[in-house]
Amino acid sequence: MSDEQTARAALSRLMEPQDSAGLALIRVAGAVDALRIAVGELKAGPTLEQNISAALQDAGGTGAWAGLTESKKRWGPRITDLAPERDLATIARLGGRVVIPGDELWPRQLTDLDLHEPIILWWRGPEEALPEPTKAVALVGSRDSTSYGGTVTGDLAYSLAQRGFSIVSGGAYGIDAHAHRSALAGGVGQLSTIAVMAGGVDRFYPSGNEDLLRAVSRKGAILAEVPPGSAPTRYRFLQRNRLIAALAGATVVVEARWRSGALNTAHHAENLGRAVGAVPGSIHSANSAGCHRLLREGAAVCVTDAGEIVELVSPSGAGLADSPDGPDSPHDGLTLEDLILLDALPLRSVTSVEKLCVVAGLSPNSVRAGLGRLGLLGLAFAERGGWKRGRISE
Amino acid sequence: MSDEQTARAALSRLMEPQDSAGLALIRVAGAVDALRIAVGELKAGPTLEQNISAALQDAGGTGAWAGLTESKKRWGPRITDLAPERDLATIARLGGRVVIPGDELWPRQLTDLDLHEPIILWWRGPEEALPEPTKAVALVGSRDSTSYGGTVTGDLAYSLAQRGFSIVSGGAYGIDAHAHRSALAGGVGQLSTIAVMAGGVDRFYPSGNEDLLRAVSRKGAILAEVPPGSAPTRYRFLQRNRLIAALAGATVVVEARWRSGALNTAHHAENLGRAVGAVPGSIHSANSAGCHRLLREGAAVCVTDAGEIVELVSPSGAGLADSPDGPDSPHDGLTLEDLILLDALPLRSVTSVEKLCVVAGLSPNSVRAGLGRLGLLGLAFAERGGWKRGRISE
Repeated sequence: MSDEQTARAALSRLMEPQDSAGLALIRVAGAVDALRIAVGELKAGPTLEQNISAALQDAGGTGAWAGLTESKKRWGPRITDLAPERDLATIARLGGRVVIPGDELWPRQLTDLDLHEPIILWWRGPEEALPEPTKAVALVGSRDSTSYGGTVTGDLAYSLAQRGFSIVSGGAYGIDAHAHRSALAGGVGQLSTIAVMAGGVDRFYPSGNEDLLRAVSRKGAILAEVPPGSAPTRYRFLQRNRLIAALAGATVVVEARWRSGALNTAHHAENLGRAVGAVPGSIHSANSAGCHRLLREGAAVCVTDAGEIVELVSPSGAGLADSPDGPDSPHDGLTLEDLILLDALPLRSVTSVEKLCVVAGLSPNSVRAGLGRLGLLGLAFAERGGWKRGRISE
Repeated sequence: MSDEQTARAALSRLMEPQDSAGLALIRVAGAVDALRIAVGELKAGPTLEQNISAALQDAGGTGAWAGLTESKKRWGPRITDLAPERDLATIARLGGRVVIPGDELWPRQLTDLDLHEPIILWWRGPEEALPEPTKAVALVGSRDSTSYGGTVTGDLAYSLAQRGFSIVSGGAYGIDAHAHRSALAGGVGQLSTIAVMAGGVDRFYPSGNEDLLRAVSRKGAILAEVPPGSAPTRYRFLQRNRLIAALAGATVVVEARWRSGALNTAHHAENLGRAVGAVPGSIHSANSAGCHRLLREGAAVCVTDAGEIVELVSPSGAGLADSPDGPDSPHDGLTLEDLILLDALPLRSVTSVEKLCVVAGLSPNSVRAGLGRLGLLGLAFAERGGWKRGRISE
């Protein structure tokens, strides 16, 4: 157990996720000294304060920082709760581990979060690297999903897992549960699904998903940036969503109400430059209103099957999506003149070139040339000294 | 009856809709001389040919024009069928009229079609100007619509007609029929609906819609660019779609298969710079696949109610669309710190400022200030010497 690991384990209890000043402190002072400064063992000089302020501005921070003294007031009340060795023992007892930036298992895609990269990951599941973002899709949505949303999520997760994609979600009821369950069912390799929790990974939350999450912890990964014992507060749910978005190459919202945490995940994905998809549904379903909102605002691409999601996550796979009606129709690519001529050809009787000229409004030469082209396509044929339409055009 | 009217009535039988060379001839020679040239009464000189060629290129024509001799071969076979006086008598007998460019009743929005503006409109219905495009919406879609598509079309058409919009469609079975019928039911003024036909307006086609189209001809408008007696060929259906798109400020596809004439109307609208909307539906419905295709390709905006369509057709009406969940939630606009604090407040028991500091990870000053803000919003209140969450936050 390195000092760095222990310090980060402690810092993850002291600081809420995405505590910008705390993360800037870690960046400029390193985790070990950052912890000593946070708990008052080490005094910070004015240069350090300036460096934190600069790091906050580099990361696009807006507004003035109130200074380290103010930030320490935020961390202070939690100092007495610090017991990183106990937390590390807990995760070890659960068969898990912690992973910190720089570790071989650290998911490199999290560096896209810049300053808001997590301090540490508390991790349950096989000791195996997470998939690259091009092989991971987040499926998210309402907890109170409809049967439509459940069926769609199940189909998409199963089909994507069968193609070797890992399904990232939040372990909640509804869409999340359908996504994890079907990914486990369809998975062909390890880590077919990843659950990112808002609270500590020692608890399988919500309790109704305990069996499912236990299965995910055996065959997938259960991750959190907060230490064991942490409660899944609303704030942590919102912060957790940025990790779901960052771990996946594309975030797809299957069902979401007009205001929904899933939309928050989608916006995180958008801000990270990740692809965002939304599944359409009935306009009478309140559970699709959030998806339609994303589509309407241009914040998501409309996706209707696994192939279209694969295109989102790995654009080089373009063309994998099938057109639902199969091959092109024999009419595709006909010139306007030939289309007019085709319309003019009778189905049952036969007609003459002269009559076709009148009906189609084409010159005799055009009619003869067009009949030749349509004949080659099987769309017209000669019979009893006249012409009729080919059966293939029906 | 002017010579110009009679000439255009004749030309509309000689030339198929959107016959570029024919329309260019009319543009450079005028309708009366164009007819004389087309039927061989007047000889065209080389300057005229050059002017036609230039007009075709001005209109963005691609490829070389084969010349007037070739075009005349296309018109020639139909010369013997010409009987404009008979056609004009027919439309008069039906209580209708013809309208040509320059007439007061000519819909000015058709000039957006440039060279492909119709030669003439054959018109049944009250002698009243069509609405401006900002007051007209095209609702189009599958002939074999589902009950979902029918219900949605009916709701949208009724609601838009109630708001004074005119509903433009194609008079076909399915979505078209639902659109016309509900517009007639909801219409508050004249011309609540307009049917643009692919064949002649003397026939109410398809026959199953005869009663409906008769009602449209009494209280709305039935229009065609082809003369009475013309068959509704596939080619004419496709050309007719450009008129639907041009007459409306926005074209909304309610239901369409992956390949559908309604998508053709949508693309005409897009090319004309008109707004295009698509109604989402179940991904399991083949009748929504065309709508989802438009959304996916970015060719349409996702629309789910009449208010959103009003925004499309008259962007100044932005904000008319309602958010389905009503007013904003009291949590909207809370700072992250206040959201953390709200999460930390117990619902049933009360807690102290000191305890809130630990749970929320905030300094005592931040907690006190935050409790003040939340208290003003009714989200927190003091009780028995401590603090608990306000009922309004539930």
